[in-house]
Amino acid sequence: MDLKHLAKATTKTLSSYLTYEAMRIVVAQLRETNPPQAIWLSGFSSTGKVQDGEAYIQELLLVDQGMAFRIMTVRQHIADEVLDFLPEMTRTGIQESNMKLRCQHLERIVHFQVEPEQDENSKI
Amino acid sequence: MDLKHLAKATTKTLSSYLTYEAMRIVVAQLRETNPPQAIWLSGFSSTGKVQDGEAYIQELLLVDQGMAFRIMTVRQHIADEVLDFLPEMTRTGIQESNMKLRCQHLERIVHFQVEPEQDENSKI
Repeated sequence: MDLKHLAKATTKTLSSYLTYEAMRIVVAQLRETNPPQAIWLSGFSSTGKVQDGEAYIQELLLVDQGMAFRIMTVRQHIADEVLDFLPEMTRTGIQESNMKLRCQHLERIVHFQVEPEQDENSKI
Repeated sequence: MDLKHLAKATTKTLSSYLTYEAMRIVVAQLRETNPPQAIWLSGFSSTGKVQDGEAYIQELLLVDQGMAFRIMTVRQHIADEVLDFLPEMTRTGIQESNMKLRCQHLERIVHFQVEPEQDENSKI
């Protein structure tokens, strides 16, 4: 398990996700101030190219520099505000989810094993 | 900008990504120890359902409990090892990327503005 490579790949995914969220925030802001631009940005971003945050910003820079700079500023702001909470939230989230999934599965097995017995009892 | 909602959504994305990476690690391990199972797990995970980590594990629990438990254990291990490095790595990554993209764009503009002048000079 190459943890260094894993950390880098996770960082890239996280950075791309924050770019996507920044785009959504700018679209929401534009809906209030400049609806045609909101529609344009939404359309530009809808073809899946926002999956790779860096390539997305590079492409947007060629078409609308101001918009690209705005999204870059917003993603940096989100990063500053949100990132520090993520390790604890994600760790707790995964722990709780694992426990919940194990319990649900246990309940399902017990229920599955108990049901036929109940049927047999009702027949007696 | 609803930062609390944003942090939750980012946590969910991160958790799903770690589930995906855990699946890839288990597939790589199985390739060494049990190739047919590696092929099966790879096929099961390839239809995009791993995009939502929780739904993916729930579905896998119904089909192969041992495999699901194994992926749950691996994702928790990765979370413990990798998460603490992410805030700093992602923050630095976004700052550097923003600076690089701005510089590249500036260079492109300068190059674009300089080129026609050179052409005119060469005509003189």
